[in-house]
Amino acid sequence: MDMKAYLIDDRFWKNKMEVVRTKMIPYQWKALNDLVEDAAPSHCVKNFRIAAGMEKGDFQGCVFQDSDLAKWLEAVGYTLAWKKDRELEQMADEVIAVIEKAQQPDGYLDTYYIINGLEKRWTNLRDNHELYCAGHMIEAGIAYYLGTGKHTLLDVVKRLADCIDRTFGPEEGKIHAYPGHEIIEMALVRLYEATGEIRYLHLAKYFIDERGKEPLYFREEGEKYENPFYWENSLFQYQYYQAGKPVREQKTAEGHAVRAVYLYSGMTDVARIMEDDSLMEAVETLWDDVTKRQMYITGAIGSSEYGESFTFDYDLPNDTVYGETCASIGLVFWAKRMLEKELSGQYADVMERALYNGCISGMSIDGTRFFYVNPLEADPEASRKDQRRKHVETSRWRWYDCACCPPNLARLIMSIGNYVCSVREDAIAFHLYVGGRVQTPFTDTQIRVESQMPWGGTTKLIIEKAKNSHYLEKFTVALRIPGWCRKWKAEVNGEEVTDLPRNGYLYLERKWKDQDEIRLECSMQVERNYASPMVKYDIGKTAVSRGPFIYCLEEADNGKGLTRISLPSDSLFEMTEGNLETGELDLKAEGMQMLAEGWEACLYRTKRPTKYEKKHLRFIPYYLWNNRGEGEMTVWVQETACDRAKE
Amino acid sequence: MDMKAYLIDDRFWKNKMEVVRTKMIPYQWKALNDLVEDAAPSHCVKNFRIAAGMEKGDFQGCVFQDSDLAKWLEAVGYTLAWKKDRELEQMADEVIAVIEKAQQPDGYLDTYYIINGLEKRWTNLRDNHELYCAGHMIEAGIAYYLGTGKHTLLDVVKRLADCIDRTFGPEEGKIHAYPGHEIIEMALVRLYEATGEIRYLHLAKYFIDERGKEPLYFREEGEKYENPFYWENSLFQYQYYQAGKPVREQKTAEGHAVRAVYLYSGMTDVARIMEDDSLMEAVETLWDDVTKRQMYITGAIGSSEYGESFTFDYDLPNDTVYGETCASIGLVFWAKRMLEKELSGQYADVMERALYNGCISGMSIDGTRFFYVNPLEADPEASRKDQRRKHVETSRWRWYDCACCPPNLARLIMSIGNYVCSVREDAIAFHLYVGGRVQTPFTDTQIRVESQMPWGGTTKLIIEKAKNSHYLEKFTVALRIPGWCRKWKAEVNGEEVTDLPRNGYLYLERKWKDQDEIRLECSMQVERNYASPMVKYDIGKTAVSRGPFIYCLEEADNGKGLTRISLPSDSLFEMTEGNLETGELDLKAEGMQMLAEGWEACLYRTKRPTKYEKKHLRFIPYYLWNNRGEGEMTVWVQETACDRAKE
Repeated sequence: MDMKAYLIDDRFWKNKMEVVRTKMIPYQWKALNDLVEDAAPSHCVKNFRIAAGMEKGDFQGCVFQDSDLAKWLEAVGYTLAWKKDRELEQMADEVIAVIEKAQQPDGYLDTYYIINGLEKRWTNLRDNHELYCAGHMIEAGIAYYLGTGKHTLLDVVKRLADCIDRTFGPEEGKIHAYPGHEIIEMALVRLYEATGEIRYLHLAKYFIDERGKEPLYFREEGEKYENPFYWENSLFQYQYYQAGKPVREQKTAEGHAVRAVYLYSGMTDVARIMEDDSLMEAVETLWDDVTKRQMYITGAIGSSEYGESFTFDYDLPNDTVYGETCASIGLVFWAKRMLEKELSGQYADVMERALYNGCISGMSIDGTRFFYVNPLEADPEASRKDQRRKHVETSRWRWYDCACCPPNLARLIMSIGNYVCSVREDAIAFHLYVGGRVQTPFTDTQIRVESQMPWGGTTKLIIEKAKNSHYLEKFTVALRIPGWCRKWKAEVNGEEVTDLPRNGYLYLERKWKDQDEIRLECSMQVERNYASPMVKYDIGKTAVSRGPFIYCLEEADNGKGLTRISLPSDSLFEMTEGNLETGELDLKAEGMQMLAEGWEACLYRTKRPTKYEKKHLRFIPYYLWNNRGEGEMTVWVQETACDRAKE
Repeated sequence: MDMKAYLIDDRFWKNKMEVVRTKMIPYQWKALNDLVEDAAPSHCVKNFRIAAGMEKGDFQGCVFQDSDLAKWLEAVGYTLAWKKDRELEQMADEVIAVIEKAQQPDGYLDTYYIINGLEKRWTNLRDNHELYCAGHMIEAGIAYYLGTGKHTLLDVVKRLADCIDRTFGPEEGKIHAYPGHEIIEMALVRLYEATGEIRYLHLAKYFIDERGKEPLYFREEGEKYENPFYWENSLFQYQYYQAGKPVREQKTAEGHAVRAVYLYSGMTDVARIMEDDSLMEAVETLWDDVTKRQMYITGAIGSSEYGESFTFDYDLPNDTVYGETCASIGLVFWAKRMLEKELSGQYADVMERALYNGCISGMSIDGTRFFYVNPLEADPEASRKDQRRKHVETSRWRWYDCACCPPNLARLIMSIGNYVCSVREDAIAFHLYVGGRVQTPFTDTQIRVESQMPWGGTTKLIIEKAKNSHYLEKFTVALRIPGWCRKWKAEVNGEEVTDLPRNGYLYLERKWKDQDEIRLECSMQVERNYASPMVKYDIGKTAVSRGPFIYCLEEADNGKGLTRISLPSDSLFEMTEGNLETGELDLKAEGMQMLAEGWEACLYRTKRPTKYEKKHLRFIPYYLWNNRGEGEMTVWVQETACDRAKE
């Protein structure tokens, strides 16, 4: 719960946070209040006002509409922790008063059922998102409390959690169930951590343990209340909800990707805190499955649009992918929780991969347009003409077309400090190198970070003791050596560190004094990446990266026909300043493009295509694609062996 | 209308015809009469009996159920032309009597509307298949007449066609419409050719000319009768039915692939016979689009399961393909009609490609199981776990699960003689070399064919004059030089022919006499085929062929992980006897398989995969896949440049 601890002050993330603070949060406020002129009304705040008895009317919007306001309040909480903003705080306080008023005497809070009839509540946990909305509201209550010190919303969500705790559980008379869309598990753990109330932790564990047990609650509920079952004839069945079997028996990630990683995040929390070995084993099995067999190189997950879902191991098509922004955000949540469990470079590598690629590709530079789907290969013609790729938008949507991912991005970006470092016993571990300052738990000690990352490899960490503090406590600064780094060098006050990293982290244990300076140099070379031969879609191809960034080719730089481009195996890369973001480095290389000349009259022939044209290629960081209009894009590029290049 | 003319007597096709005659036709008869024990009843014959007043009951089955009986009767007609079978003929005669009785006094014949109320007929031409069922019945009537000389069914379909002619047309008081599922266009042309009644030809032309004109009939009909429109929110709209614009303005093949090629077949007929240049131009444009930009190397068409449809140029995914058996059959219909228009090797090459690959892959060797979908890359795991590939069955279905393709295959195979040759003015042109005998239109002249095809390249054509015939007429024998043939040699009575082929055909003009012998040797080498670089799915890959056959790798011979197999560019092929069909030749070559060893712990790395294992590969003809249980299959194989192979 160290949200206030890391104060971001770097070029890369501060830009993004400013965009969220000045554009996204005010815009969403308008949207929630139906004030965006050319957009369909959200009805979200109105639903709360109706539920509070302040207006008359029907519930409108999706069954999970409440969560939009929750996500907004959570982002506002993080924002106010970073920067005071009286006007914003006042807006939030006012709407929190409405929420408080809408809450029922027993703590229940879901405007859909408050307006439509409380007697119907808890009758469709599988599809009606009550516990999902509750989870988001709990996260909002905590964030707003930590950001402002005000506990009105925290009190609301405690009463809500108590209501849920009275309703669900193993005891007779309670409902033996769990949510169709997970999130409440990790929310309850956070609420336990914020309040110390162990009941919330036990409830989180209950939801996890109960999930998928026979007789299956979702099946019985569906029959009892005659809820239509959307996945009746699908390959998923209840695994769409990760509920086809008990979670400890689930060996592969299946079903809706966002739900899955939200569940796995909660499982990781519970396994760590409660030292539940069998649950931890399940989490590790699933982690390996997701990150070693079902994750795109951009940190995107969810191979199929059908059910926004995982498919099966090594099935990673680049052009029909789903790769929802929210799923990569969920992967960041999960990776951070795995790091809390165990300091291991693999978790930080995945977290960083998702953060700098598959998450932030979800928004345009100016923060006004958003991707829901994040393809690794895009072709506007295919999206226009092929129903199977219609979901692969080749222009980001305006905010109001896409309710789910932008507020999720807002809350992630405004809480980015939470992902920079962790405190563990007598150590502080740095996962990412982001300029800023962190208040450590060690006496009178701050650490100030200056870093060239993500564009350069040099980082300085300066120990800052409080004025007149003379207490020299021994603690460890653990530094992640990123997976992409081939050579590194660390110095403390100019003296080279000769220790070797363990599990991807270098441990520096000292009695640190004021102005001690740690310097970490990570080589940041351009790399060609290759996928496992099990991924049929990437055979013969390479993906270019530098540091945390995966690069791509875009039509704006390289013209049409990107799939016909190849990169000879001996081409060299040259770095060059980019035009889209401050500090951005693009990559240039000599490539080739297979020519389709002479093929107009035949689709197949017995002579191998050999006509190539030289092509000056420009690669840009993947997350920056589609900021210059619509066009083709590809991450994976054909690689030609040198001999062919010289033909 | 020379169906009786070519009497097949060769190893390859005779086998298939015997399978159809002895297994498929009797089995379908049982199915049509609800006598297959473990299958849901078809209700087809029963519907006719109810419509004829011979039984009581409701209409059951699909709205196009009548067409099943029509296809069966058509296949029976071809069968009886080939081989007398009293029992079969009697069954057919009996059911024809029922059909005759079901026909309404005005000629109308569709059991769905006869049973459900004639006042509703012609109110949903877009979706309710009345004209489609009529088209199939017309084809059946002609085939049965030609096969048996009996005209009861021909008279029925003439009355039916007359009823349709009175109902539709440009005149005031008639409905200005066209069918949602095409076929009646080509059926009416055949009926014109069989009867000489020009009205039928004009009606075919009317249906073609009216199609897609504004105001759009389908839209107006939908509004008037409140027919729900299934494609409202799809990319297709009315192009699903090839009705989004007038046919002469359609430049790319779109929508449902079977409907499309059935339409194009009818358009080709009408354009040829009526010398309609603008229609011919449209047909040629569409032909180029389909065969040069939207056809798989197996002759499969229809890239997407969504709407069983074409997508767009060069979009030819191998693993999510639809490639319906019926669509390849339709392509054969169309190609033959293009050949009637103009003797050009490109049409025969496509016809042969579809026939020997994408059509007959639709059935198992024993004729009891069938594919609806014909993939070029199959993986049982993917079909089981990925909803987007669920349609790609990796085992053929039993007949009764799949009503559409098997009877279509039956009628194609039993009429294969129709595709062997064509008569043109003073010439007879051979498109395929199939053992048998053909009665030419030239005085007292038969031609007997003996051929090693499709497994070998030598063909003999022997002129046989009737006994005591001394009239020596001059005519031309045109011989197709197949597109796959690199070297050929022709001799007449041992004397080498020095003429060169024009447009893929060699023209031999002689005063032919009895026992003149033409010998054609076509080199039949193993070829590596390459797709246009515009087809992104096939870049870096090769497909192996020999003669008309495309080959594939199957798990039964080559183990799992076929997508990791590559064929070095210098590997040689060795022919070897196959075990599945008489005469079958398989191909052996040395290949390599990329190993996934060492990749268990990582999905991406910066070192190129270099571990290969040598692999003895066995390729079998594509159409024979899945006759040895379920497993992976691929047509396109990675090709490695020699240097990589030697690494």
